[in-house]
Amino acid sequence: MVEKAIGITAPKSRLDEWYPQAIVKAEIADYSPVKGCMVIRPHGYGMWEHIQQYFDGRIKKLGVKNAYFPLFIPESFFKKEAQHAEGFAPEVAWIANSEEGERLAIRPTSETIMYDMYSRWIRSYRDLPLRINQWANVVRWETKATKLFLRTREFLWQEGHCVYETDEECAKETRLYLEEYQKLCEEVLGVAVIAGRKTEHEKFAGAKYTLSVEAFMPDGKGLQMATSHHLGQNFAKAFGISYLGKDEEAHLPYQNSWGISTRTIGAVIMEHGDDKGVVIPPAIAPIHCVVIPILFGKHDEAILQKAKDIQKKLKWLQVELDDRKGYTPGWKYNEWEMKGVPLRIEIGPKDIEKNCVVVIRRDTGEKQDVACKDIVSYVKACLEDIQKSMLRKSKERMAKSIVHPQNWEEVVKALDERKLVLGLFCGKIECEAGIKEKTGATSRNIPFDQKGQAGKCLHCGKETSTEIYFSKGY
Amino acid sequence: MVEKAIGITAPKSRLDEWYPQAIVKAEIADYSPVKGCMVIRPHGYGMWEHIQQYFDGRIKKLGVKNAYFPLFIPESFFKKEAQHAEGFAPEVAWIANSEEGERLAIRPTSETIMYDMYSRWIRSYRDLPLRINQWANVVRWETKATKLFLRTREFLWQEGHCVYETDEECAKETRLYLEEYQKLCEEVLGVAVIAGRKTEHEKFAGAKYTLSVEAFMPDGKGLQMATSHHLGQNFAKAFGISYLGKDEEAHLPYQNSWGISTRTIGAVIMEHGDDKGVVIPPAIAPIHCVVIPILFGKHDEAILQKAKDIQKKLKWLQVELDDRKGYTPGWKYNEWEMKGVPLRIEIGPKDIEKNCVVVIRRDTGEKQDVACKDIVSYVKACLEDIQKSMLRKSKERMAKSIVHPQNWEEVVKALDERKLVLGLFCGKIECEAGIKEKTGATSRNIPFDQKGQAGKCLHCGKETSTEIYFSKGY
Repeated sequence: MVEKAIGITAPKSRLDEWYPQAIVKAEIADYSPVKGCMVIRPHGYGMWEHIQQYFDGRIKKLGVKNAYFPLFIPESFFKKEAQHAEGFAPEVAWIANSEEGERLAIRPTSETIMYDMYSRWIRSYRDLPLRINQWANVVRWETKATKLFLRTREFLWQEGHCVYETDEECAKETRLYLEEYQKLCEEVLGVAVIAGRKTEHEKFAGAKYTLSVEAFMPDGKGLQMATSHHLGQNFAKAFGISYLGKDEEAHLPYQNSWGISTRTIGAVIMEHGDDKGVVIPPAIAPIHCVVIPILFGKHDEAILQKAKDIQKKLKWLQVELDDRKGYTPGWKYNEWEMKGVPLRIEIGPKDIEKNCVVVIRRDTGEKQDVACKDIVSYVKACLEDIQKSMLRKSKERMAKSIVHPQNWEEVVKALDERKLVLGLFCGKIECEAGIKEKTGATSRNIPFDQKGQAGKCLHCGKETSTEIYFSKGY
Repeated sequence: MVEKAIGITAPKSRLDEWYPQAIVKAEIADYSPVKGCMVIRPHGYGMWEHIQQYFDGRIKKLGVKNAYFPLFIPESFFKKEAQHAEGFAPEVAWIANSEEGERLAIRPTSETIMYDMYSRWIRSYRDLPLRINQWANVVRWETKATKLFLRTREFLWQEGHCVYETDEECAKETRLYLEEYQKLCEEVLGVAVIAGRKTEHEKFAGAKYTLSVEAFMPDGKGLQMATSHHLGQNFAKAFGISYLGKDEEAHLPYQNSWGISTRTIGAVIMEHGDDKGVVIPPAIAPIHCVVIPILFGKHDEAILQKAKDIQKKLKWLQVELDDRKGYTPGWKYNEWEMKGVPLRIEIGPKDIEKNCVVVIRRDTGEKQDVACKDIVSYVKACLEDIQKSMLRKSKERMAKSIVHPQNWEEVVKALDERKLVLGLFCGKIECEAGIKEKTGATSRNIPFDQKGQAGKCLHCGKETSTEIYFSKGY
């Protein structure tokens, strides 16, 4: 036996300790020798591939096409849109090679380099709407400690950048892409989110407004999952994008940009994991099912054959046959549970006699004897049920986390208890800064779903009817 | 009418002028404001997506898994393998932010950063073979003039990096991945290639040997399409990768790396284009077929309806319906021909009466009346025929380009005439340098397919039986 000690030494309830261990031990990602950068290992990258495949298919149906723009951005481009420049300046990485006489940044986001090109490509209303997306790496020179997936100097994402004739069309699609993100989070990642608008303070640097979907993690911190920015005409002005309208006059178009990144994988891990390790939703699982033959000498050959048969029957899924020697079945169970594979199928001597197998759900631990002839339909239904059930639990947990404080003391108490606060706030930048200073909490978003009842801002007492989500963040 | 002058102002025979125009006017790519960097537009990126999808599927079947490693590489890593460091030093881009006390490079290739991680992950023979691939951007700080797709400071590629217990296994798979590249070039890109081994002078910095597939462009220059490097134990030694064998002893493993990049799109364009513009092989065409309704008032509605029916019938393909107003059919034909769409379907009033359409092949210009009921099978067969025919022509052109000189004068003459020289060369580094100095030509590779007849090196006269391909390069 070559068994080595595995397993996570902290319970899920100690999320700060549990989280990096769960990731590294499941071989989802690893720390790299480059400060602030991580390595996404195949078991983690496989999740990203599923996210990409799903979302890429969705946006292509909406008329978006993929392209690729340079990694480098001339410094002067950043400066063209003042708020954008100010927002990104502190975290830009620069290239040392520069015979150009101008500093080159590594893209933290690609508005500027893309819109310079757009200004060359867009001539008339016939060129609009223009809908382009890019799957790429971006760099933000974080100085805070690395947190796998959540805070790294480089991460992977998609960034969509569209141009429209009218404000209305732009606003409509800005919302549409956010709805796509909500679908992705809930139906694919199984993570409940709140859709809404960011406050003025939290909006994207250079945007007219920013929409977001926000998750709430078990340690009581909010996590921004994706954003969709209505850029108004700010960048069109800054980059000289104009089009000749049907009226034969020149007009400034309206733009949006929207993105989701590998940080969502961090949310998936925190949301669904348990003391045994990671739990991966079937829709993004690199491996859906592991088949473990229990070999003790008796019926070994028949068991192995049955395991291969099962793998073949389930060939529309990614099924791993773990026939490694030198490991006990129990050790294998632990390892695959730690890796979060949604289903495990065990086949032992008794199962051969009864012509059935044992199927174990990762999310609930439920065991079920299943006749071999029923395995295909059982596995299919079971994976669907796991997917739905993971979202349901996430929604339940979020619902339980939300509190509705009636006064400032209750706000403070709720935030201390790591709750998600929904209450009346005026949304002013000064007020938000005050809340952050006093409690350390920041706004998540102003949910689309508003009661609309007037009352007083829980911080400054000013009349308002706007409900805003507040919580601690990462 | 809003027609603007389009069309390429140089014939294909003036490739240097034709090539950038063909790319930019077909909206495949564009020059960017960042020196040395290009933008890959949707019509070009769509080709890359097809290449990715095809090749990713192939290597996954061979047990390769995707992952993602940091963009940044510490300077000390480069220095660990001496030849590798020397080979890449001149073209590395460096990061200016460096509180780490160590310079960080932007990856020109990822051997070093990946193998540092491998040294942590690989413990025993049970961890081997390890087969990891990465789809990524890489940066090489070119100082020569930009050539779209062929010479840019940033390009996209895949890099596979595998680790094996034995030299034989490593050698076998190094060859296997090269064969996959040959299949990709020929069957997907329709570009004939020569498979062989690079000379000592041309091998990858740090490799034991390098295998390559080489194309030959219509302007008489060789173009390296892909390489597969057997790294021996060089990097394992440099990065301290070792594994505990079945014999309970520590061993150094063997490694290979292999890659193909967006430069292949440049080859596709040069290989297949004609005076009218680009010709895209169906297997990587972002648009397979454009349907152009010819609207002159009579039967307009019926024609448009028929066009939509055809699009629906061909929904397994990417079919564009060009019903834009303000452009003549002739103008549209030119535009889609320039963009290289494999098939055009015209529907006019007469076709409606006969219940047929006209199908035009981009590669040959052949026109064919096709009954509407036969359109699906006709298009399917036609696309297959185009794909095969493009490769056949490429093979014929390559065969005609090869000359077999018998003495040095004939070598010089053949290279002057921009031919692909196949002849006996000793393969020594000094001899290769001499040939380059005298003729400007460089070796392509030593083809696997060797006659094996002894004779004299065409340059130095030394006894040899090795045939090597030589030509001008990019």
